[in-house]
Amino acid sequence: MKTEFKFSYPSSEKVYLSGKLYPELKVGMRKVHLTPTVTIKKGERCEENNVPVYIYDTSGAYSDPNIDINLECGLPKLRQPWVVKRRERETQMYFAKQGVITEEMEYVAIRENMNCKELGISTRITPAFVCKEIAEGRAVIPANKKHPESEPMIIGTNFLVKINANIGNSSTSSDIEQEIEKAVWSCKWGCDTLMDLSTGKDIHETRERILRNCPVPVGTVPMYQAFEKVNGKITALNWEIFRDTLIEQCEQGVDYFTIHCGIRLKNIHFADNRLTGIVSRGGSIISKWCKEHQKESFLYDHFDDICDICAKYDVAISLGDGLRPGCTHDANDAAQFAELDTMGELVERAWAKNVQVFIEGPGHVPMHKIKENMERQIDKCHGAPFYTLGPLVTDIAPAYDHITSAIGASLIGWYGTAMLCYVTPKEHLALPEKEDVRIGVITYKIAAHAADLAKGHPSASIRDNALSKARYDFRWKDQFNLALDPERALEYYKASNSVDANYCTMCGPHFCAARISHSLKDCEE
Amino acid sequence: MKTEFKFSYPSSEKVYLSGKLYPELKVGMRKVHLTPTVTIKKGERCEENNVPVYIYDTSGAYSDPNIDINLECGLPKLRQPWVVKRRERETQMYFAKQGVITEEMEYVAIRENMNCKELGISTRITPAFVCKEIAEGRAVIPANKKHPESEPMIIGTNFLVKINANIGNSSTSSDIEQEIEKAVWSCKWGCDTLMDLSTGKDIHETRERILRNCPVPVGTVPMYQAFEKVNGKITALNWEIFRDTLIEQCEQGVDYFTIHCGIRLKNIHFADNRLTGIVSRGGSIISKWCKEHQKESFLYDHFDDICDICAKYDVAISLGDGLRPGCTHDANDAAQFAELDTMGELVERAWAKNVQVFIEGPGHVPMHKIKENMERQIDKCHGAPFYTLGPLVTDIAPAYDHITSAIGASLIGWYGTAMLCYVTPKEHLALPEKEDVRIGVITYKIAAHAADLAKGHPSASIRDNALSKARYDFRWKDQFNLALDPERALEYYKASNSVDANYCTMCGPHFCAARISHSLKDCEE
Repeated sequence: MKTEFKFSYPSSEKVYLSGKLYPELKVGMRKVHLTPTVTIKKGERCEENNVPVYIYDTSGAYSDPNIDINLECGLPKLRQPWVVKRRERETQMYFAKQGVITEEMEYVAIRENMNCKELGISTRITPAFVCKEIAEGRAVIPANKKHPESEPMIIGTNFLVKINANIGNSSTSSDIEQEIEKAVWSCKWGCDTLMDLSTGKDIHETRERILRNCPVPVGTVPMYQAFEKVNGKITALNWEIFRDTLIEQCEQGVDYFTIHCGIRLKNIHFADNRLTGIVSRGGSIISKWCKEHQKESFLYDHFDDICDICAKYDVAISLGDGLRPGCTHDANDAAQFAELDTMGELVERAWAKNVQVFIEGPGHVPMHKIKENMERQIDKCHGAPFYTLGPLVTDIAPAYDHITSAIGASLIGWYGTAMLCYVTPKEHLALPEKEDVRIGVITYKIAAHAADLAKGHPSASIRDNALSKARYDFRWKDQFNLALDPERALEYYKASNSVDANYCTMCGPHFCAARISHSLKDCEE
Repeated sequence: MKTEFKFSYPSSEKVYLSGKLYPELKVGMRKVHLTPTVTIKKGERCEENNVPVYIYDTSGAYSDPNIDINLECGLPKLRQPWVVKRRERETQMYFAKQGVITEEMEYVAIRENMNCKELGISTRITPAFVCKEIAEGRAVIPANKKHPESEPMIIGTNFLVKINANIGNSSTSSDIEQEIEKAVWSCKWGCDTLMDLSTGKDIHETRERILRNCPVPVGTVPMYQAFEKVNGKITALNWEIFRDTLIEQCEQGVDYFTIHCGIRLKNIHFADNRLTGIVSRGGSIISKWCKEHQKESFLYDHFDDICDICAKYDVAISLGDGLRPGCTHDANDAAQFAELDTMGELVERAWAKNVQVFIEGPGHVPMHKIKENMERQIDKCHGAPFYTLGPLVTDIAPAYDHITSAIGASLIGWYGTAMLCYVTPKEHLALPEKEDVRIGVITYKIAAHAADLAKGHPSASIRDNALSKARYDFRWKDQFNLALDPERALEYYKASNSVDANYCTMCGPHFCAARISHSLKDCEE
């Protein structure tokens, strides 16, 4: 089977920027060309040019008309020449601690600064800054040496807020082709990393196909495959099976692992009186294992061994929050915070082995309890990046949990969370389909961007301002082309308007505030 | 033409609570009946009862199976016996200042306290508290004596956060029947007030039909009709035309008027250097009028006359923010804040005439600038309730502006905004259709409820907790029945699951965290 996945964005050009330290770098960006602003002054038509806007681009080769894509062969291996030179245990953190700027570090510095050079905006995000942030553990570049197809990206409070999309089958639904399609689709709309959470058939093969065709880093929860290997029998799980699964996935090229090492036997009872117990799949499995065996978990006991494996490939660890609250009632409770304390201890052990690490967070948290999560995480985990699922700020809106969670995600992103895991409209109800993935990704791009604006990222407002100006100028197409979802915006508009009118159905020609506002200038002339 | 609009909510009963001061009151609520929690303990089936949950109900007679609805005749006039006793100028605020508790005050106190009595939750929201809040201007009950069909509700920081839905035609779209349908539909999903923003044909008749069939207070922007009366010729507008329009609408029963009295000739220039100028329709019209005539606006000059008219009918004034920012770039600027200062002056003048008043707010504001809006509004406007449109926290997501704005709405609601004006997915693109209205209302119910939780409203978490428990118990139907949109949740679920399974397609039978979590208890036995 051969499939072609290619797409283009309207009025957009795929451009590549090169590096200074590494001139051979080709950092892909989307350049949106705009039409001029046209005004009539004293009967004469005046044109004012509008500079193009560069947009952070996660779509990889799929949006490059000059690259042929064949899903059987996989994407071009852009990082191959960089990684072949590296020895075992030479991780991004290892290099950073020596002050060595890798190709990946310069790549992400260029990528984070879209529009800055063109518009003369000064930026603190230099390759040296990236290097320092990695060295001190405040940022992570998830980049397994065995996943050379992925384009480097950085996760850290001092960078653009990133988003993750979850895909993956379960035993009751989905197949490989659908998952690949969702993976590429996620990247089209803007996901920064992708987690393959498959728990059903063909876990290995599904992951292989995704990795070879995915331009963004891929994360997994290795426990899912280990659990499948023991046919769902929790007590049969052990370190050896888990270790072999880790190595198998490292070899395939997984860029980060969610591992629930923070659950300790002595803390599980804190979840006993919860309204919704343990809602993390990995967390529930390992808790059950601990209680059945009345032993500390092998994930905690073998944490140093896990780090040794990850260091070999430069796989990052995402410390999974197995005791995250599953409802607003259980937020910020003893179970959640006990696990966070353990994670803080593990972060230092990972860093000692030059393993990059970040921390997963909740979940379900009402707005007034979100800040405490962020402050406590920074404090207990020594500044390691935070990666949260939402959080959902209320439990009463199944079918709209992309929205309940985007509210919490925006807030926690503003407070400092580095990456937001998307939630789709199907959360709590079913696995997401293609359209749900699109809505989830766009919703989380909104949350992440809102956080970037609030944090004052120097170039974040450029796109907002360009779109707002287009809107006020009645440059409808420019407005849509700059939108997070140009297709949907155009679709809604076209359903009831004629493109290029200088009014719309909302107000009709007489009631248009923008038209009247423009005419205010005439009063003065 | 006769149309029947009736609907029911699943497993719900329409119940009425009566008053103590006014035993004849019938305060409608929705009582959701739940199934018991079933557990198997040592082989025996145990049932634990789950108490019903009361839900604030805005659907009026449309959800009462015992009331026949005929849109030609209008809804039952529940407030008729109360208002006939009242004399001219006896407004809710007039009574409150005397310490007289009206029927409306007791009604809203009962309405705000759903679940409290049943669950023994103590509440500070008593009829006397309502009376005090009204007397001091911190809350408003919009209730024109000529709109006896509407069920009293209260807008104020110390009460549940409310939401408004906008409907209305323009010269290029929609007809009366569609607007009525949208109005009733809005109330079904939970809007607390409805604004008819029609600017097209049949403005008077559309409003009449809406008012007679609307169980929630109705607001308008009278300038739209006045503008239509002068055929869109701004300079032809004058006080007399506006006054006559106000009286016409008061007589029909409009409960609150948005009037852009805060725009002063001397402040308009502040908007000159904005990226998107003036984006309020009323604001742009009155600004243009001021500049063309080089005169103070008749809305400002005749504010006391406006108050006299409103006092006669007990119509509340919503001071429109004509200079609200139309993009994040223009947020919190001199134009916006100059208008807010003027509004503060007008609030005191309204109160002197016992006219209830609230203040409209932006618009488009990035997250980090939202709090200043709220604090400044409370300060400058002496605690009068704030009523905001969103705000949208980024400009880059046309077609998803219900989400960009729900983020800002949740935040500003938490900070103290009393009512949130919804935004639909069609914002900036087209007039909303029926499905957009549903999504807009549900999205804003989420924002308002998230704010209620964050503010610690005593009964707000009851529904969340009941739904979360249902979720953890696999009581799927109870989960859906308690959801803001039971129909959509069930629809998503049914598309890929069989109802009553104790697992779903997300995890399949083996990977269900809730199942494993439940089984943890068995380890100990």
